[in-house]
Amino acid sequence: MRLASTHDARLHAVLGDRSVDLTDALGLRPGPGGPLLAFLEHGGSIAELQALDLDAWPSQPLDPRRLAAPIARPGKVVGAPVNYRDHQVEMHEQRTIADYGVFLKASSSVIGPGEHIRLPYRDVRTDHEGELGVVIGRTARCVPPEHALDHVFGYTPVLDVTVRSGEDRSTRKSFDTFTPLGPWVTTADEVPDPGALELRCWVDDELRQHASTADLLYDVAELIAYTSHVMTLHPGDVIATGTPAGVGPIAAGQRVAVEIAGLGRLEVGVTDEGAIAYADRPGPR
Amino acid sequence: MRLASTHDARLHAVLGDRSVDLTDALGLRPGPGGPLLAFLEHGGSIAELQALDLDAWPSQPLDPRRLAAPIARPGKVVGAPVNYRDHQVEMHEQRTIADYGVFLKASSSVIGPGEHIRLPYRDVRTDHEGELGVVIGRTARCVPPEHALDHVFGYTPVLDVTVRSGEDRSTRKSFDTFTPLGPWVTTADEVPDPGALELRCWVDDELRQHASTADLLYDVAELIAYTSHVMTLHPGDVIATGTPAGVGPIAAGQRVAVEIAGLGRLEVGVTDEGAIAYADRPGPR
Repeated sequence: MRLASTHDARLHAVLGDRSVDLTDALGLRPGPGGPLLAFLEHGGSIAELQALDLDAWPSQPLDPRRLAAPIARPGKVVGAPVNYRDHQVEMHEQRTIADYGVFLKASSSVIGPGEHIRLPYRDVRTDHEGELGVVIGRTARCVPPEHALDHVFGYTPVLDVTVRSGEDRSTRKSFDTFTPLGPWVTTADEVPDPGALELRCWVDDELRQHASTADLLYDVAELIAYTSHVMTLHPGDVIATGTPAGVGPIAAGQRVAVEIAGLGRLEVGVTDEGAIAYADRPGPR
Repeated sequence: MRLASTHDARLHAVLGDRSVDLTDALGLRPGPGGPLLAFLEHGGSIAELQALDLDAWPSQPLDPRRLAAPIARPGKVVGAPVNYRDHQVEMHEQRTIADYGVFLKASSSVIGPGEHIRLPYRDVRTDHEGELGVVIGRTARCVPPEHALDHVFGYTPVLDVTVRSGEDRSTRKSFDTFTPLGPWVTTADEVPDPGALELRCWVDDELRQHASTADLLYDVAELIAYTSHVMTLHPGDVIATGTPAGVGPIAAGQRVAVEIAGLGRLEVGVTDEGAIAYADRPGPR
């Protein structure tokens, strides 16, 4: 099933060019994280969704402009720093997650399809990083790789937007709007192999990134195993699995899109409204 | 007012050696973040607490063993990497937050008083870092320093436990149990100057850290200004303001305590139950 959240905090099943509003059927009372997070935090499962009789509920035409991020504020957004061989080469890196660990992005950085990435600095490069996002469905703590996929609720395209300055990754990757997510979450039962997904990322009409998740250094199961060894993963937490080669700068007025075969196409704009000079960032000097 | 959460997800006002259960008076329905986060996420304010007639509600003896972390799972836990001059010298650092930015700790790493820090590795040093914690009360986005304290709900002692290995700070500081918080949150109206608080941190009976928040490089207002320039701060988010000199290793069987004058004493244990060799951490090799 494809699950989308709308700006009015309702949860929809996406069926081709139509959608079915599941909010009342599931008895959801969304908090600040949105309706899908409310579903997952209260024990919602793929089995519960499969038991729904979608034909019994009215469908409506799907209006893409109504779509919000499927999870507005995840409990955690975990990122993988160097997780494709070709990106490792492009970054002149020998090290992997074994050395770097994972990093965290602020949950407040999430935006949905159609919104705009806001460039924070006029004079520092900001890059797109198209990635496969994993949404956790069941609490995971020290899970071995062979059981890790049992803890996945679904998958979604994600952009890990990054400023190329010198600060901690948590700062460079956590500016508001720096984690576009969506357009929806596809439940894991419809993704037989998360290690065989074609990923493409465009800036305007230029194809910048083109890869397969078969080339992940830590695949989805290994990434969950590693991360859950460090920190307990809760339902609704999101893991951005890392970006392939082709990372590059974005500029105001451009459109950035990431598409993963079978999971949909996430497209956002870019603006420099409110951008400041790097030297003008707040703080005592 | 001093606000404590108990293991049964109730919110209490602490009055000397007694407490008043506010959960029903405030109509709280706690989620996974606990009752104080539910209060703050639904617009709860210091003024609302001040309007309560505590004498109208029964009090009970305060049993410290019932206290949980005041916020079990904050939306964000932000940390300040080098924020006291003496710790900067001790770490052989020239740089400050202007260069490093802030980092994020996983919200799943929070524990309360009386719980145990679990050492993840048998053969890598894990350090205590005693700090002043700031709890956000009102959404803060690009707030100038002169208005920053208006966004503070309260203050609490916090430990920023850290593994001294080579990974990203988010990994080294996010292991489960690595953010002891409490014993309660003291509301900002009872803390006239967060820049004049005496902080002490002990390991067993040895005083390891002793400082004043007057020596913060970025004071609380500047830290909120900087952080809110990067990421929107939401009610219930926690900022650990950085640690003074005296950081050192902790070992299984020890007790770690951090006390801030007027804000209470947070004490936790240390265990190596489940600790592994660093070389045995999960991941493809």
